[in-house]
Amino acid sequence: MLRGNQTWWFEQRPVIIGASSVVGPDEGEGPLASDFDLIHPELDMQQKSWEKAERLLMEQASDFAIRHAGIQKEQLQFYIGGDLLNQIISSSFAARDLGVPYLGMFGACSTSMETLALASQLVNSGSASYALAGTSSHNCTAEKQFRYPTEYGAQKPPTAQYTVTGAGAAIIATEGDGPVVACATIGKIVDLGVSDPFNMGAAMAPAAVDTIQSHFNDTGRQPSDYDLIVTGDLANVGHRIASDLLERGGVPMRDTTFGDCGLMVYDVEKQKVQAGGSGCACSAVVTYGHLLKRIASGELKRILVVATGALLSPLSYQQGETIPCIAHAVAIESKEAN
Amino acid sequence: MLRGNQTWWFEQRPVIIGASSVVGPDEGEGPLASDFDLIHPELDMQQKSWEKAERLLMEQASDFAIRHAGIQKEQLQFYIGGDLLNQIISSSFAARDLGVPYLGMFGACSTSMETLALASQLVNSGSASYALAGTSSHNCTAEKQFRYPTEYGAQKPPTAQYTVTGAGAAIIATEGDGPVVACATIGKIVDLGVSDPFNMGAAMAPAAVDTIQSHFNDTGRQPSDYDLIVTGDLANVGHRIASDLLERGGVPMRDTTFGDCGLMVYDVEKQKVQAGGSGCACSAVVTYGHLLKRIASGELKRILVVATGALLSPLSYQQGETIPCIAHAVAIESKEAN
Repeated sequence: MLRGNQTWWFEQRPVIIGASSVVGPDEGEGPLASDFDLIHPELDMQQKSWEKAERLLMEQASDFAIRHAGIQKEQLQFYIGGDLLNQIISSSFAARDLGVPYLGMFGACSTSMETLALASQLVNSGSASYALAGTSSHNCTAEKQFRYPTEYGAQKPPTAQYTVTGAGAAIIATEGDGPVVACATIGKIVDLGVSDPFNMGAAMAPAAVDTIQSHFNDTGRQPSDYDLIVTGDLANVGHRIASDLLERGGVPMRDTTFGDCGLMVYDVEKQKVQAGGSGCACSAVVTYGHLLKRIASGELKRILVVATGALLSPLSYQQGETIPCIAHAVAIESKEAN
Repeated sequence: MLRGNQTWWFEQRPVIIGASSVVGPDEGEGPLASDFDLIHPELDMQQKSWEKAERLLMEQASDFAIRHAGIQKEQLQFYIGGDLLNQIISSSFAARDLGVPYLGMFGACSTSMETLALASQLVNSGSASYALAGTSSHNCTAEKQFRYPTEYGAQKPPTAQYTVTGAGAAIIATEGDGPVVACATIGKIVDLGVSDPFNMGAAMAPAAVDTIQSHFNDTGRQPSDYDLIVTGDLANVGHRIASDLLERGGVPMRDTTFGDCGLMVYDVEKQKVQAGGSGCACSAVVTYGHLLKRIASGELKRILVVATGALLSPLSYQQGETIPCIAHAVAIESKEAN
């Protein structure tokens, strides 16, 4: 099942039988608004804290995914979840609500595809019949934890990114209707020495490039095999760097459409989101809310989602460390594509 | 490969071909001292911060495990790691050092067996030929992050536990010499409403019991099938509660030896460790340092390690939340046991 050095090839073709996305107000004003299952008009979602609001997002996304999959909660066998918060509390509290065996993961913003890759691997290998992959982020929990509480009104440079408020979930099964998870390339840490947490796109770009190149090496595929390749949250600065690096590396990305979820989830020109979106939920809501619908409609046959993560902590930054980055890529395709 | 509701049965019998444990001074004064690969005489390990010391532990444990396995670093295909620190920085920085595809996990102190379970699953399913599972904790990083910096000299109640300073790592392979990972039971969240972070043993005990019962239900095994069943870090208070709950639940634990890594790693009567040891490294260094040697010597044929985790964060506690707990169980046996 391992193909090449770091790619899991899913020969049983596990299926995403249900997926969902729940978002906050800013995402609800973005260009993908009509694709989300639920848009909260307020950032607090009538909860007493930002953290409780984020947990609600994760729980709602899980509930929608279960409903869309047409299964009962009791049929779920594993929940593979993670988020940005210290000790991934959003996921763990959501896991308490779900009441199924739980594996917590942390990959910063790459968690969306890290959890989807693992859930698909479990189903593909017969270790689960139904597995839920999910992740969440909230603009105010992330600002508070990684930078300053939003109430301070701290200024940001234009290279900073805006954490998506939302949660995305997908249920993977051995069979059923829906797109297929074809393979997943698990990333290595890449750290080229960037230490500015307000320029994470630049820090993460080389990790995305490394995983994309490894994916093509391992699978023998090439960019033209995909109708769309999207990075998770490189945003304006990082995505340009990734494009340049790929061109220099001889990867013909002009043969496909190369996008970034952080540039798709907002209208970056009009909304005040600096360089674009970020956060675990960024690639999750774009993939589960938007991209899967374009596969279902037949517009896209095969896509590669390359979720990027910056594995720093405020403390590692304060101690003068650079930012270790990673990217995990998952190929999703219509059942007919093969 | 799924047996029952939540147990992965490893029919390919993946082998732990190398394991290691590196610890700090307190563990070096405990009863298992002679089993560890390296004992640091100072808590700071000549590093500039406690966090850098913890990372060093993880890197050293990985290096020893690779050496003991008799493989080259380049043969490793995946590193499955996690720790207690925010954004699991010890693992992620160690992953940068290793340079192999990396999956970060978080299960608090259950991370030891969460990572071993997943590494074994990957090898068993053909998703990896060599996978490294590892985890670490450091008394001073944990105190600083979860409670108070040790320099404050804050007092603690006798129900509190003492975080183990150490790291443990194991390399799982499709074949080779060493004990076999037979199966793993993935836990569900159990939260009976305990909210006192100075009594985590009591909070975690019901999760251990739930996983032990599920393990026997799923596998058809019973306590007498094991020479030893150990919980991860319930310590004095929690282990007694777990024993009581199992007895009331009709699980005949008197047919086996039922221990706790938190009570084994220190001399709880003589060392100032309150109720006993805790931390990700607690079950990791006891399992990888001590128990595997007792399997190798033939003294133990088959053991079940039930690593427990309290999935709280300081923030969830401050917001009045109770403590969601989990336990993952892994059965390890000599090759001859079957």
